[in-house]
Amino acid sequence: MTSKGFSVTPVEGLPELRAGDDLAALIAERSELLDGDVVVVAQKAVSKVEGRVVTLEGVEASDEAREIAGDETDPRRIQVILDESAELIRVRPPLIIARTRHGFVCGSAGVDASNAPDVDTLVLLPVDPDASARRLRDALRERSGADVGVIVTDSFGRPWRAATTDVAIGAAGVEVVQDLIGERDPVGYELHATKIAIADEIAGAAQLVFGKLDRVPVAIVRGLDVRGDGNAQELVIPPDRDLFR
Amino acid sequence: MTSKGFSVTPVEGLPELRAGDDLAALIAERSELLDGDVVVVAQKAVSKVEGRVVTLEGVEASDEAREIAGDETDPRRIQVILDESAELIRVRPPLIIARTRHGFVCGSAGVDASNAPDVDTLVLLPVDPDASARRLRDALRERSGADVGVIVTDSFGRPWRAATTDVAIGAAGVEVVQDLIGERDPVGYELHATKIAIADEIAGAAQLVFGKLDRVPVAIVRGLDVRGDGNAQELVIPPDRDLFR
Repeated sequence: MTSKGFSVTPVEGLPELRAGDDLAALIAERSELLDGDVVVVAQKAVSKVEGRVVTLEGVEASDEAREIAGDETDPRRIQVILDESAELIRVRPPLIIARTRHGFVCGSAGVDASNAPDVDTLVLLPVDPDASARRLRDALRERSGADVGVIVTDSFGRPWRAATTDVAIGAAGVEVVQDLIGERDPVGYELHATKIAIADEIAGAAQLVFGKLDRVPVAIVRGLDVRGDGNAQELVIPPDRDLFR
Repeated sequence: MTSKGFSVTPVEGLPELRAGDDLAALIAERSELLDGDVVVVAQKAVSKVEGRVVTLEGVEASDEAREIAGDETDPRRIQVILDESAELIRVRPPLIIARTRHGFVCGSAGVDASNAPDVDTLVLLPVDPDASARRLRDALRERSGADVGVIVTDSFGRPWRAATTDVAIGAAGVEVVQDLIGERDPVGYELHATKIAIADEIAGAAQLVFGKLDRVPVAIVRGLDVRGDGNAQELVIPPDRDLFR
């Protein structure tokens, strides 16, 4: 990666998104995309246009969901989280840390209420965020003519550090993990075990302009030379190789 | 934070740094700083000018260090890591995840060999990275006249996700955790538990231009409105409050 720097610009003026909206068209109309740009999209925008939204009316809570929910949480909300979970990592009612079917470990299995169209709906993670990124990349190329990368992000908490950062849950057309193994630094010392999660760093950079309150779920990152064919599954570490776990 | 976007620019041409170097002067000579800029500095640059470098010759390895080191690692290197550790979190010889005295949980207690002046030296974390950031901020204001923020970063691994990202280990003059608790999103839904580790996101953004091989340990982030009086200790979560742990 050789770079004299880069810029991060929000894509403003997007409408409230609904299932079936043409997100690529909405983005392309509001930006001048160039080859090599990375279009970073908050998961909720992708999930909404993909219809990954559930309303609580149709949900029936199990006994397990009722037990976790306690008295102050809607057990149907817990049920939706359980349905999205492949494994419960920690449960401190009503909080749940879960591994999703994609292998991501995050709060509420990625199920989110904020920014949903109304308070009785929940937004789920895309079924396959890498596929979502690929589709959006293809559609953006069709709409704009530009060969761009796409990263889909979500805000994850993490062990050992407070607060959340945005990380990549889907990617297409970009390098996701930069591997410097075996390369040598300027004094000839061989770098070992230097793998950098650049897609997560790009996701975090984009979050800085998203604005939770301003409804800006898309940013354009320009000037980074990160074209590649990575995917966000590279960021999922098998539990037996996870020394930090 | 209202922003129409921001830029990240590497500060190039810095010499190999040594103890006692005036890092603020070296940065100010190579950049045109403006009020509100955030100067992001890789930990190794700060540690080197602060003399936080040890040579292995003077280190005597304990039995514990020899046991962890095994046959392929210099036990003196392990000893230095043990000396920097407040608590060993995981040991899978010769790998160590430790909590440092600052409260950071990271590989090798932040002790690093790569990019050291020669292969027999190790670079330690600053004694007090927040104080390092404050000193650098004051010195930069003196040299440049600009009221800038400073973030000191290091590359940390993390549980549940592969590879490293740069995070903030020291900060001055910036907001570190952005707290949206109690604010309402555009449809009136109250956001809860939305704390964003913006200093970590800024650190990761800067890493994208650092270049492990190119000896660029400083970047200027311009255009973010993140002035504040945070410090990186805000990012250390007490173990009993760490649901992810």
